[in-house]
Amino acid sequence: MAATSPGYGITIRVEGPPSAQPVALATTVITAAGATITALDVVESLLEKVVLDITCDTIDSAHADQITIALAKNPELTVRKVSDRTFLLHLGGKIEIQSKVPLKTRDDLSRAYTPGVARICQAIVADPADARRLTIKRNTVAVVTDGSAVLGLGNIGPAAALPVMEGKAALFKRFADVDAWPVCLDTQDVDEIVRTVQLIAPVYGGINLEDISAPRCFEVERRLRELLDIPVFHDDQHGTAIVVLAALRNALKFVKKDLGSVKIVLSGVGAAGNAIARLLTLSGAKNIIGFNHHGVIHNDLKSEDSMQQWFIDNSNPNNFIGAMPEALVGADVFIGVSAPNILKEADIATMAKGSIIFALANPDPEIDPVVARKYATVVATGRSDQPNQINNVLAFPGIFRGLLDANAHKITDQLLVAAAEAIADCVSPEQLNASFIVPSVFDPNVTKAVAAAVKKSV
Amino acid sequence: MAATSPGYGITIRVEGPPSAQPVALATTVITAAGATITALDVVESLLEKVVLDITCDTIDSAHADQITIALAKNPELTVRKVSDRTFLLHLGGKIEIQSKVPLKTRDDLSRAYTPGVARICQAIVADPADARRLTIKRNTVAVVTDGSAVLGLGNIGPAAALPVMEGKAALFKRFADVDAWPVCLDTQDVDEIVRTVQLIAPVYGGINLEDISAPRCFEVERRLRELLDIPVFHDDQHGTAIVVLAALRNALKFVKKDLGSVKIVLSGVGAAGNAIARLLTLSGAKNIIGFNHHGVIHNDLKSEDSMQQWFIDNSNPNNFIGAMPEALVGADVFIGVSAPNILKEADIATMAKGSIIFALANPDPEIDPVVARKYATVVATGRSDQPNQINNVLAFPGIFRGLLDANAHKITDQLLVAAAEAIADCVSPEQLNASFIVPSVFDPNVTKAVAAAVKKSV
Repeated sequence: MAATSPGYGITIRVEGPPSAQPVALATTVITAAGATITALDVVESLLEKVVLDITCDTIDSAHADQITIALAKNPELTVRKVSDRTFLLHLGGKIEIQSKVPLKTRDDLSRAYTPGVARICQAIVADPADARRLTIKRNTVAVVTDGSAVLGLGNIGPAAALPVMEGKAALFKRFADVDAWPVCLDTQDVDEIVRTVQLIAPVYGGINLEDISAPRCFEVERRLRELLDIPVFHDDQHGTAIVVLAALRNALKFVKKDLGSVKIVLSGVGAAGNAIARLLTLSGAKNIIGFNHHGVIHNDLKSEDSMQQWFIDNSNPNNFIGAMPEALVGADVFIGVSAPNILKEADIATMAKGSIIFALANPDPEIDPVVARKYATVVATGRSDQPNQINNVLAFPGIFRGLLDANAHKITDQLLVAAAEAIADCVSPEQLNASFIVPSVFDPNVTKAVAAAVKKSV
Repeated sequence: MAATSPGYGITIRVEGPPSAQPVALATTVITAAGATITALDVVESLLEKVVLDITCDTIDSAHADQITIALAKNPELTVRKVSDRTFLLHLGGKIEIQSKVPLKTRDDLSRAYTPGVARICQAIVADPADARRLTIKRNTVAVVTDGSAVLGLGNIGPAAALPVMEGKAALFKRFADVDAWPVCLDTQDVDEIVRTVQLIAPVYGGINLEDISAPRCFEVERRLRELLDIPVFHDDQHGTAIVVLAALRNALKFVKKDLGSVKIVLSGVGAAGNAIARLLTLSGAKNIIGFNHHGVIHNDLKSEDSMQQWFIDNSNPNNFIGAMPEALVGADVFIGVSAPNILKEADIATMAKGSIIFALANPDPEIDPVVARKYATVVATGRSDQPNQINNVLAFPGIFRGLLDANAHKITDQLLVAAAEAIADCVSPEQLNASFIVPSVFDPNVTKAVAAAVKKSV
C-alpha cells in the first residue's frame, strides 16, 4: 500500500533562476517521484532567482529523502531546506497549560492565590467532596502509560511514549473539552504502577490507561478499580471494543445478519482482542474463534491469566482446531487486532457471502482493504485514509465526558454497550451503507450522544 | 488589622422598592458595616422594585455574614443571593489544557496523532535527549506537594492543597510562560514521595517542591537532586530566601549598612528560615540569632537533621541565650517567617536606628506593619495590601524559565545569589526608598532579568 500520507508531510525550500521556470520544474520532479503536492508558496521572486516552499505528502522517510535527492540532482535547482511537517509540529510539545482566571492585578492574585485561596482549601478540608466542585478534579483525566505497548512500536518506554500521550490529551480536549494530562511512568512493575496512580489520584476525576501491554494491563485496571473512587478505563481494551461493537452492529444490520448467528474469526487476543470478545459475547455473539501468534485458542488450553482463561472457556464452541484459513471458510466476520499482512486473498475468498472484514492492525492492516473489498461486503480498518475508520476517538472523549459529568465511579459492561449503541445510532438508516458504518470522528453529535448514554447508564 | 480584602470579596444581589431608594440605602448599610464597595450594578429597574448587584470586599467570612444580616434586617430590602467571588472563581478549577496544534482535519490528526506521531516516538527512542526538543519536557515543571505545610493552614493533605497548586501553575504560566502541572501526593512518607516523583519525571523538565513540611522537605529535595537529571527546587526554601536576600540588599543599601556588620534576629527556622539563613550567610552575614517556638537556637543544641545542625553550628556567634525581646535590643534586622503577632511594640522599640523589619508570616505578620513603621525605617511583609511585598512570585517563574532554557540541572548557591541580585537590581537607585525595596510582581523586567541571571550562572 504505497500511498502518500500527511503523517510524512514535508516542506521543501527550493530555488532556481527564473529562466529555468523553477515552479514547473520542481513540481514536475516531485510529482514524478511519487509525492502528492498539497501546497506551494513563492517565497521570493527576484531577478536572479525564484524561491519556493513546496509542501507535499510522501510515503515514508526514505521516500522523502528520494524526493530531496531528485530535486538536488537537477542542475538548475538548489534545495535550501527540508522541513518535516510532523517534526515541526512537535517542537516543544503539543499541549500547554492555560489559566482560566484573570491574573492582571493584585486583587486578581488575592483571589486566585493568597490569601483568598486559603478559604477554598479550608472548604475542601471541611467537605472533601467539594474538591470536585472547586478544583480541576471536576474535569481532568490522567492519561497513564508505562510505554510498554505503544502503537505498533511496542515497548519503547515512558519518554518515547510521551508524544502519543500528548496527542491523546489534545484529542480529549478537542472532542470533549476534557482536560487530560500525560503520566508516563518510569517503571513496568505492576505494584509500582498501581501504587503511583493511587498516590497521584487526588488531582484527577478519572484515569485513562493507555499503551500498557497485556496481561499486566488487566491486573493494573482491576486493582485500580478496587482502590480508587474515580473511574478507571483502559482505552486500548474497552474503547476499541466499543467502536468495534458499534461498527459490527451497523455492518450486520446492513448485510441483514444477526450477531447471535454469525461465525466470527478473531485474530489477536491481547488487550483489545480480549475486550472485543467479551463485549461481543455480552451482546449476543455465540461463535468466536480466536487466534494468537501460537495458533487457535481451543478448549483444552490453560492460562494463569484470568482474562485469557475466560476467553478459552467462552469461545470456540465447536472446539475448532486448525489454522486460520480453515477457520475462515464460511465465516461471516473477520476481526483483526494483530499484525500486518497475515491474511492472503485466498483466505478471505472462502468466507460466507455478505462477509465483514475489520482489519485493524496499525499502521498496516492484516490485509489490504482494496483487496478485501473484492470479496467482503463491508471492510473497515484503523486507517484515516480509508472509509469505515475504526477509531477509538469515537468513544473515549464521550465516555469520560459522561463519567465526569455524572460523577460516576463504576464502569459497567452495560455502560460500554450503551456507548456502542450511541455511536452506532449516529449513523442513520439513510446514511448506512457499506462505506459508512461508523460516524466520522468530526461529527459533533458523537461525543454528545456517547456522554448522554453514559450518564443514563450510571 | 481589620482591613477588608479582595480575597473576601462578595457580590450581593439585593432589591427594594424605588420609594425606599434602595441604592442609597443598601450602600449606606454596607459601608456602615465596614465593607469596601468596589462595584455596583443596577440589574433591573422596574416600577415595583430595583434589583442591585453590589460587590464589596469584606474582612473575613464572619464579616460577610454580618453584612448580609444587616441588609436583611432592613425591612425595605430583600437579599436575593450572596456570591462569594473567590468561590465563584474556583468552580471547576483554575487551569486547563490547550492543544497547541490544529486538530480540524484528518491530515491534522495524521500528524498530531497516528500515524505521524510514531516517527516522533522513534526519534526519541533513537536519541533520548530529543525528548527535550520534541515534547512538553522542554517547557514543563511539576508542582509537587503532599499537602503537609500549606500556607498558614498546616497539614491539610493533597486534595485540599490542590487549589494552591493550581494557583502556582497559573502564576508560572502568567509570569514566565512556563507550563506547570499540579502533583498532589496521597502520602507523607519520604521514600514514597521520592520514588513517585522519580517515576513521573519523564514528562517534566523540572520539579518545584511546594508546601512539604520541614525537615522532610530537606531530605526529599536532596534525594531527588541526586536521582534526577532535571532541576529540583523547593520554592518555600529557596524562593523565599532569594527574595529576602534581594529585599535585604536594597534595604541595607538604603539605610547605608553592611550585611557583614548587622545583627539579625530570625524568627522561624523551618524550611524558609533555614534557607534564608544559609543564603544570607553565604552572602556575608555574620551575626544571625535564630528562634523557633522552643526558644533561641544556641550553640549547645544538637539536632539529628543536618540542616538544623548546620544552623546550630553557623549562627549565634556570641552564643546569646535568652528570649527574643532581649535579642532584639540593638538588632539591625528582624526577619520573621514564623507566626502572627509574636512581637510587641516594646520589643521593636529597642532595635538599632535605621532598623529593618521583614514580618513575613502569612496571612498575619509577626507584627502589624503600621505599628512597625513607627520604629523601623524599612518594613516589609508578605501581604499584597502593604508596600514592600516579599513575594516568591518575584523568583520562581524566572528561575525555572532560566533553568529550562539553559537545559540546566544543578542549582547552585551562586545561582540563587545571582537571581537575588537580578531582582534587587530591578529597583533602580532613583526608585529605591523605604517603601520600594523590591520590584512589583507585575514588573515585566523581573522574570527576564532573573532568567538571564540564571542562564549566565549555569
